[in-house]
Amino acid sequence: MTRSIFDRLPLHPEPSRLTAFAANALNRQSEHRADDCVEQALMIDGAHLFAFSGGKLVVKHDGQVVDPLFALYEMKELEPDFDEAILLGHRRSGEPRLAVPVKADPEQFARHFKVVDGRTVYRDQYLTGELLGEFAQASSLMSWNATTRFCGRCGGVMQPKAGGYRRECAACGTQAFPRTDPVVIMLTVDIEQDLCLLGRGAHFPPGMYSCLAGFVEPGETIEDSVRRETFEEAGIHIGQVRYHASQPWPMPHSLMIGCFAEAHSRTIKRDETELEDCRWFSREEVRALLDAEEDQTLSSPPEGAIAHRLMKDWLDWPEIA
Amino acid sequence: MTRSIFDRLPLHPEPSRLTAFAANALNRQSEHRADDCVEQALMIDGAHLFAFSGGKLVVKHDGQVVDPLFALYEMKELEPDFDEAILLGHRRSGEPRLAVPVKADPEQFARHFKVVDGRTVYRDQYLTGELLGEFAQASSLMSWNATTRFCGRCGGVMQPKAGGYRRECAACGTQAFPRTDPVVIMLTVDIEQDLCLLGRGAHFPPGMYSCLAGFVEPGETIEDSVRRETFEEAGIHIGQVRYHASQPWPMPHSLMIGCFAEAHSRTIKRDETELEDCRWFSREEVRALLDAEEDQTLSSPPEGAIAHRLMKDWLDWPEIA
Repeated sequence: MTRSIFDRLPLHPEPSRLTAFAANALNRQSEHRADDCVEQALMIDGAHLFAFSGGKLVVKHDGQVVDPLFALYEMKELEPDFDEAILLGHRRSGEPRLAVPVKADPEQFARHFKVVDGRTVYRDQYLTGELLGEFAQASSLMSWNATTRFCGRCGGVMQPKAGGYRRECAACGTQAFPRTDPVVIMLTVDIEQDLCLLGRGAHFPPGMYSCLAGFVEPGETIEDSVRRETFEEAGIHIGQVRYHASQPWPMPHSLMIGCFAEAHSRTIKRDETELEDCRWFSREEVRALLDAEEDQTLSSPPEGAIAHRLMKDWLDWPEIA
Repeated sequence: MTRSIFDRLPLHPEPSRLTAFAANALNRQSEHRADDCVEQALMIDGAHLFAFSGGKLVVKHDGQVVDPLFALYEMKELEPDFDEAILLGHRRSGEPRLAVPVKADPEQFARHFKVVDGRTVYRDQYLTGELLGEFAQASSLMSWNATTRFCGRCGGVMQPKAGGYRRECAACGTQAFPRTDPVVIMLTVDIEQDLCLLGRGAHFPPGMYSCLAGFVEPGETIEDSVRRETFEEAGIHIGQVRYHASQPWPMPHSLMIGCFAEAHSRTIKRDETELEDCRWFSREEVRALLDAEEDQTLSSPPEGAIAHRLMKDWLDWPEIA
């Protein structure tokens, strides 16, 4: 049996736990979602809801503390649309956690309500830990429900069922289930030269470099997807691929699958429509990117991003060549 | 750093390569799919197409040889719907590979045409190797296009674009992209007792046992999904999880993510609506399942199934306890 170069590397016990959006201890009871589970949950003391306006999170804030959780009585003026409410699950205490879109005009919201998009929630740390994980679940389901109003087969109206986890066509009976898009994101390493491959898209913040990434295509393994994307975007041939960590990414509903990939070639041929730059970085350069303050020229995605995790964990590798 | 129990296990270089549907060497050029790429491809000498009738594969057969590839001139009587044709990619030789739904009534097909569903294509080995991989890609895209005729946002008609890799709403401009559903499938192992956990659904062939599996939910890592599904279906608590292999599964468009999972409890509490039976198996019992002939009482999924792979590769583990 051919042994992989990766056999000699340290295995972290579960780096997925160290990514943002990953902490979520709700009991989902995925096999037991009755059509009236939202109604039942709302009658339980301690039920709290995330509120979404046009796909963005509504938070209460007093200038200092940000609170994303609403009790029922606190949200009346937001005009919650309970027909489209989602039961996320129950906390250990038994308290139900839900999410609901609201119909009130955000321009008319009282001053202590604020509307924040998913990227801002994450980047500016409006939420952290389990609240951020619950938000990821809520936001992904909110997006999917909002884009699955009509039946893809017949164009009929889809009705929400199973607490927001299924939609059913009133005309033809077609059922639809929440969508999660698998994305590969990889740190490609030139083992001999001890370098890794990073790139930047034109839409990145100035100076930021990150791992290459792309959607897994129909009829593709994770490993083949890593090889295809790296070759298409950077012209680099890949040998072995090793899965490292995964991360829920709720913009709108992806599953990031983070891998290390072994470069079998060195000459970069960048896809100029996808990448503004792509080049090899040394460990010292990567360390500097990870440690960079906001005002520095070059930077990496923030801690919590799976790309940051891959870059940081590569620095722990022993020198192999 | 806590070391994982899995650190001591053999790492296969890439078990994904050993799963059915995984072999596919088409050059997809995913970033360069023009709206007229199907038309362009059909003009190239050597272009061949898979034909689908009602979502099932049409093959030519003469009693002995099965041929799933049609040249343009061979398919006229099938009434191909070229508006819905898909460009899968190009072979190394430059020959384009496509897929197209056909409109002719399968009841009226000539005797040398046969219509076969995906499970039969796989189980009865109508196709193998790269042809089976190309079929997986074709069938997944065919299903997605067929269920995305109307816009989920507004109910308008969706037009196929980018060679079947995008659909666009003629009314509101919404774009939709192919869907791939990540599914975790796991072999849960009781390391001390050297046993693994297998179950059977009521819809399985009689006597067949397999790994537990379930869809990754929104806002969930791969590892958490393995833990949730195993607990929900079997009541077993899971510690460490290790990714092993992935497999495209075109019924209709999943990505199977195969993992080993470490049991932290032993008492099975089966979900009776999901599983007809669930129990612990010894290595000898698993070996017997894998080697079983069709007429034997107990069996496993066939070679090529990722569950078979997980079971077989577990037999290679050194005894750890």
